[in-house]
Amino acid sequence: MTDLRSGALAALAEQTIELPSWAFGNSGTRFKVFGQPGVARDPFEKLEDAAQVHRYTGVAPRVSLHIPWDLVDDFGKLAAHARDLGVQIGAINSNLFQDDEYKLGSLTHADPAVRRRAVEHHAQCIEVMRQTGSTDLKIWLPDGTNYPGQDDLRARQDRLADSLQQVYAMLDPSMRILLEYKFFEPYFYAMDIPDWGTSLVHCLALGEQATVVLDTGHHAPGTNIEFIVVQLLRLGRLGAFDFNSRNYADDDLIVGSADPFQLFRIMNEIVAADALLGAGVNFMLDQCHNIEPKIPGQIRSVLNVQEATAKALLVDREALAAAQQDGNVLGAHGVLMDAYSTDVRPLLAELRGSQGLDPDPYAAYARSGHQERIARERVGGQQAGWGA
Amino acid sequence: MTDLRSGALAALAEQTIELPSWAFGNSGTRFKVFGQPGVARDPFEKLEDAAQVHRYTGVAPRVSLHIPWDLVDDFGKLAAHARDLGVQIGAINSNLFQDDEYKLGSLTHADPAVRRRAVEHHAQCIEVMRQTGSTDLKIWLPDGTNYPGQDDLRARQDRLADSLQQVYAMLDPSMRILLEYKFFEPYFYAMDIPDWGTSLVHCLALGEQATVVLDTGHHAPGTNIEFIVVQLLRLGRLGAFDFNSRNYADDDLIVGSADPFQLFRIMNEIVAADALLGAGVNFMLDQCHNIEPKIPGQIRSVLNVQEATAKALLVDREALAAAQQDGNVLGAHGVLMDAYSTDVRPLLAELRGSQGLDPDPYAAYARSGHQERIARERVGGQQAGWGA
Amino acid sequence: MTDLRSGALAALAEQTIELPSWAFGNSGTRFKVFGQPGVARDPFEKLEDAAQVHRYTGVAPRVSLHIPWDLVDDFGKLAAHARDLGVQIGAINSNLFQDDEYKLGSLTHADPAVRRRAVEHHAQCIEVMRQTGSTDLKIWLPDGTNYPGQDDLRARQDRLADSLQQVYAMLDPSMRILLEYKFFEPYFYAMDIPDWGTSLVHCLALGEQATVVLDTGHHAPGTNIEFIVVQLLRLGRLGAFDFNSRNYADDDLIVGSADPFQLFRIMNEIVAADALLGAGVNFMLDQCHNIEPKIPGQIRSVLNVQEATAKALLVDREALAAAQQDGNVLGAHGVLMDAYSTDVRPLLAELRGSQGLDPDPYAAYARSGHQERIARERVGGQQAGWGA
Amino acid sequence: MTDLRSGALAALAEQTIELPSWAFGNSGTRFKVFGQPGVARDPFEKLEDAAQVHRYTGVAPRVSLHIPWDLVDDFGKLAAHARDLGVQIGAINSNLFQDDEYKLGSLTHADPAVRRRAVEHHAQCIEVMRQTGSTDLKIWLPDGTNYPGQDDLRARQDRLADSLQQVYAMLDPSMRILLEYKFFEPYFYAMDIPDWGTSLVHCLALGEQATVVLDTGHHAPGTNIEFIVVQLLRLGRLGAFDFNSRNYADDDLIVGSADPFQLFRIMNEIVAADALLGAGVNFMLDQCHNIEPKIPGQIRSVLNVQEATAKALLVDREALAAAQQDGNVLGAHGVLMDAYSTDVRPLLAELRGSQGLDPDPYAAYARSGHQERIARERVGGQQAGWGA
Repeated sequence: MTDLRSGALAALAEQTIELPSWAFGNSGTRFKVFGQPGVARDPFEKLEDAAQVHRYTGVAPRVSLHIPWDLVDDFGKLAAHARDLGVQIGAINSNLFQDDEYKLGSLTHADPAVRRRAVEHHAQCIEVMRQTGSTDLKIWLPDGTNYPGQDDLRARQDRLADSLQQVYAMLDPSMRILLEYKFFEPYFYAMDIPDWGTSLVHCLALGEQATVVLDTGHHAPGTNIEFIVVQLLRLGRLGAFDFNSRNYADDDLIVGSADPFQLFRIMNEIVAADALLGAGVNFMLDQCHNIEPKIPGQIRSVLNVQEATAKALLVDREALAAAQQDGNVLGAHGVLMDAYSTDVRPLLAELRGSQGLDPDPYAAYARSGHQERIARERVGGQQAGWGA
Repeated sequence: MTDLRSGALAALAEQTIELPSWAFGNSGTRFKVFGQPGVARDPFEKLEDAAQVHRYTGVAPRVSLHIPWDLVDDFGKLAAHARDLGVQIGAINSNLFQDDEYKLGSLTHADPAVRRRAVEHHAQCIEVMRQTGSTDLKIWLPDGTNYPGQDDLRARQDRLADSLQQVYAMLDPSMRILLEYKFFEPYFYAMDIPDWGTSLVHCLALGEQATVVLDTGHHAPGTNIEFIVVQLLRLGRLGAFDFNSRNYADDDLIVGSADPFQLFRIMNEIVAADALLGAGVNFMLDQCHNIEPKIPGQIRSVLNVQEATAKALLVDREALAAAQQDGNVLGAHGVLMDAYSTDVRPLLAELRGSQGLDPDPYAAYARSGHQERIARERVGGQQAGWGA
Repeated sequence: MTDLRSGALAALAEQTIELPSWAFGNSGTRFKVFGQPGVARDPFEKLEDAAQVHRYTGVAPRVSLHIPWDLVDDFGKLAAHARDLGVQIGAINSNLFQDDEYKLGSLTHADPAVRRRAVEHHAQCIEVMRQTGSTDLKIWLPDGTNYPGQDDLRARQDRLADSLQQVYAMLDPSMRILLEYKFFEPYFYAMDIPDWGTSLVHCLALGEQATVVLDTGHHAPGTNIEFIVVQLLRLGRLGAFDFNSRNYADDDLIVGSADPFQLFRIMNEIVAADALLGAGVNFMLDQCHNIEPKIPGQIRSVLNVQEATAKALLVDREALAAAQQDGNVLGAHGVLMDAYSTDVRPLLAELRGSQGLDPDPYAAYARSGHQERIARERVGGQQAGWGA
Repeated sequence: MTDLRSGALAALAEQTIELPSWAFGNSGTRFKVFGQPGVARDPFEKLEDAAQVHRYTGVAPRVSLHIPWDLVDDFGKLAAHARDLGVQIGAINSNLFQDDEYKLGSLTHADPAVRRRAVEHHAQCIEVMRQTGSTDLKIWLPDGTNYPGQDDLRARQDRLADSLQQVYAMLDPSMRILLEYKFFEPYFYAMDIPDWGTSLVHCLALGEQATVVLDTGHHAPGTNIEFIVVQLLRLGRLGAFDFNSRNYADDDLIVGSADPFQLFRIMNEIVAADALLGAGVNFMLDQCHNIEPKIPGQIRSVLNVQEATAKALLVDREALAAAQQDGNVLGAHGVLMDAYSTDVRPLLAELRGSQGLDPDPYAAYARSGHQERIARERVGGQQAGWGA
């Protein structure tokens, strides 16, 4: 156990989790977006808030941007601002769902002019990547249809393949596409990339710079997500996670809040495949804090991933393999559960101590006064949200 | 068959379907609301559009209002406007989800002041009912929680019971509450009225003027909806339907577009229980036309309900009962399917002919020029939507 | 925390979990039942195995029987055998699914003769209850239909109500009916008691000696089970649990193995409502150990319930209520999660030490040699299963 | 419409649907298998019953066998028997779930000896293929795990790939593997081929003689099956269907009985891709007639597929494409629905008339006296079921 523990501490010291800039803006449902005092009003303020998360947790050194929500005149300045705050720019997310032209599709639209516009938007994103040093272009394709017969499902796949090929051709050698799939929403009959199989098929057609993003909230009820993790790692095509929680649909709740055991099982497969560090998997959050405060919500999320990782690192893999080899069903299950039952908060407090951090990031942030300060100072202007 | 056919025609001539005013405004997902040319800008224009649906189908003589979306200075004038257009005001829907105070609940909120405000909103709705001659107060409780532990589930039930009691006490003798349940959204851990059982429990506690609304999109995957129809009819507590279609969540698609056989099975239980007419069941639509035009979308919806009803009326109930009594599984199933397999469009064309209507309402509306006229004339102002 | 801890120890010392006799026989899927060495061959041997679970865990002093699987000539002798082993007979389960006459229904069958037979089977069960001192008659109604139209859903409800009334009339004053609901299986279109609402409706019609059984595997995907627990406790109608785990259907896996957090949330509502002890809730297991050994499988299950209970007892309810009252979403959630994150194995080891038990029941049983002994001695005869 | 109608008649005259031999034996749930009078007792009698389905419908000329359930001493004689009855042997199904050794897996088992045995079973199946002239080897892999940690998910994939490679190497050039996936059952944590993506990944690794089988009952709730059809056709890897219906799990009900519109949408994509005839897609049934009679159940199933196909053939594809190209959402949807709303029973009666068949196969079979004859004559012996 001593070895497991010290190995865990070493790995945890290297782990990183990427934060989404939009988690620091307002979000909600189609029914209502509730505002909150002190919410960031521009990308610079979002980075300041994200830096708070990193300051107290020590494991969140990157921030994903979303274009056009995070468009600024000078991305060099934004990247420098990030560095000054101790963080850096991560993945660049394109947006294919908020233009009026995209009502019936973007990269899959029947009209070549709309597809061209959607492709060209990625040229803009890639330019932002060059200016910010980002290497990950994340494409979530929101395209789909609401009614049977509305459009030709096969033609949409072919148009998608063609559009993606054009985007892929624009990549620099150091860049890659992270291609996301989603079961449903914002369309409710047939999404054009509804599952990992479809995303993989397109990545295989594109080439080695294309990998799959697994958003933990984008599956049919009952789907075994860790199995998909295993399969994509086996094929060398797991590019990134979008972490969040769901109970029903794409609920975008705090990761680990709905089913902490699932998060543990996912991280367990990551650790088992030695893919926590250096394997090209980008561990990102993608969440909405509709009713809870943004920065504490992100801190809680980061801690949940960290705790699940710590437990996964404590699995006694020799004992596990031995029990599995013996066909000892309950024994093997028990080895896994022993790690899950462990309270890893002391271990993580120790880690933080060794890094000069407060053992309780959530409480330390609460005591810092930052929340009160932004509520007081960020007066006027327009709070950031999904549309701005 | 001749008897079935003439009986069906007679019943279809009496059938009515209520339209929601908000179907004529813009709607969308949390990601985007797409506007459409010619969309109504106020409750008067919504009624004009609804009246078009009734004009061509002949079965949609009522329009539900939503408060505050449909607030006007003079409801007497609005009701008169409706009458002039050949329709009337139907159910009044309260709104418990768009006030900033309701972030953590309305009728269930921990703060008595917020609950009081939510209760008082219903006094306003009841006043609108008196002014418009409406008798149905529809309450959809959007309250719920996103995280385990966030609030006390039991206390929320007790507060809800108390709040509902206060609303119930305000009803005139001719009025009733239609209490809606919903599986999830806008909250994603525990809704406070998630299922028909909870809605029924509260209706039973309130009294005979409280009945359940069944929204066809508000159930867990796989739920047998016609069974709930049967059970609520058996208990005398089915007050109304909110018709729409779902494939995944509360997709609010055109009723009958996702699973026309399900709609038929529902109407079959209605007909079997002799509850189509005069049984106090209000057949309402509650949908979003996110990408399709509003008025044609409503016409299509009305026709779908009408066709499902026609098929249900053609079920040979004597043959069905005989096969059921014999334990003839495939025979009984076959009797039902024979009615479903029937093409009822000629029957409905005949009905319309006898009513002086065009046999094809959808095409007749398209030819009428109304869509082009409103696109041309409704310039300026703010298109109606869920927020206005 | 000291108070919470000592209160938890006191409550845990009183907690009891009831074992199902059929967990000690073979079980499987429709595809295959795998046998295991040493499986019990009759009710006496099942009790011996159940007693092993109690011997090592100290919390499983009762065993449910299933009639006719556990029919013996002399139930007085069986009850005495149980007492000698340190356990007692618990609930009596009737069987309405294995008679050829029940193909199209039992208590709901269209043929009054079949219904009568199904009712009379309960007279036999009640007689067993009298002979064994059991007070809980558990009725799982497997009735349902496979095809729309196959039978009259409303008539089936009315026949069910009538049949249940006859069974209810046979109860002694000390007895109660536990009425179970199930989403689907063994029928796949409409179950006759598919949900808690239907079970409750029938219990309310029967009277105060009728309560609902909540089987944790009998719900639609995504159903919030702890909400149902809250509602049934609020109405005074939660009679019992059938504990197990599901990922997909009614998988009947070891309770707490698929989603330990859900089990914790359920026990949390039990503790919050002070319903762990003396509230008339019978905490029973209902599982299948298809591939794992039976006795260790039951021990693991019992420990999982015990651990979830321990965590629920450690929730700081004052802090929780305060955070809830403040609308502190993350704070309240955090209080709950703090208890869940706690490793309660040391606490339970302490409890066992104080009871003269081995701190690790699973390991102690493994060392005991019982498994090897039964594998060696139980030769010949027919292993018990669902059919015998 | 005349052209569509005559084209439909021509295509329908060529359509074939394959029947499963096991549909003529008894089946049931894990709770009970109900017997029925006259059920076939051996493969010869199963073929006789299957031939009845073909005799009255004219579209079911092939019968799949299942090894070992349909093992006979002389397969040449069985094939000749089939020919005498007017049918032929279709796909050969291997069985990996009923051997005691397979409790923890077959092609994925940790023990190489068990894997070898599972591979060798396919040599036997291939030998049956040679003797019967079959070219399709259908492999449904029932392997999976019930508990997290029970086995190494990645290792199981690698062992599976290796085992499949060995089976593939045994194929004759004219043969192909049909590789089936299934969401869950008989294991309930992680199936080893749970989705089309996994099946495809293995087929791609094997080579061009490996294709995917889509069983319509093997998906997560809400899965859009016609999308998968489109994707697999696009990739040239849709080998076959296993048709049936589900409401909840793998219910194996009569195809088209739960959601006839879904069956239509599937056949619509087949027709749209010109894959009804000559495209290498084997349209097979895979169902259980638990409570309804077997032969009428198969006739009903075949008619349902035929009716869905007829409707799909009546879709006005020019009008559909034009509306889709125009972005006319409701117009395009309406074109599809017009075909679905059509009553195709007269068209199919006409087809049968032109083939010398009775216009109503179901009634004609009922009148034939075959059912009464087999009930009278098939006395003694053991009725066929899933185990024999």
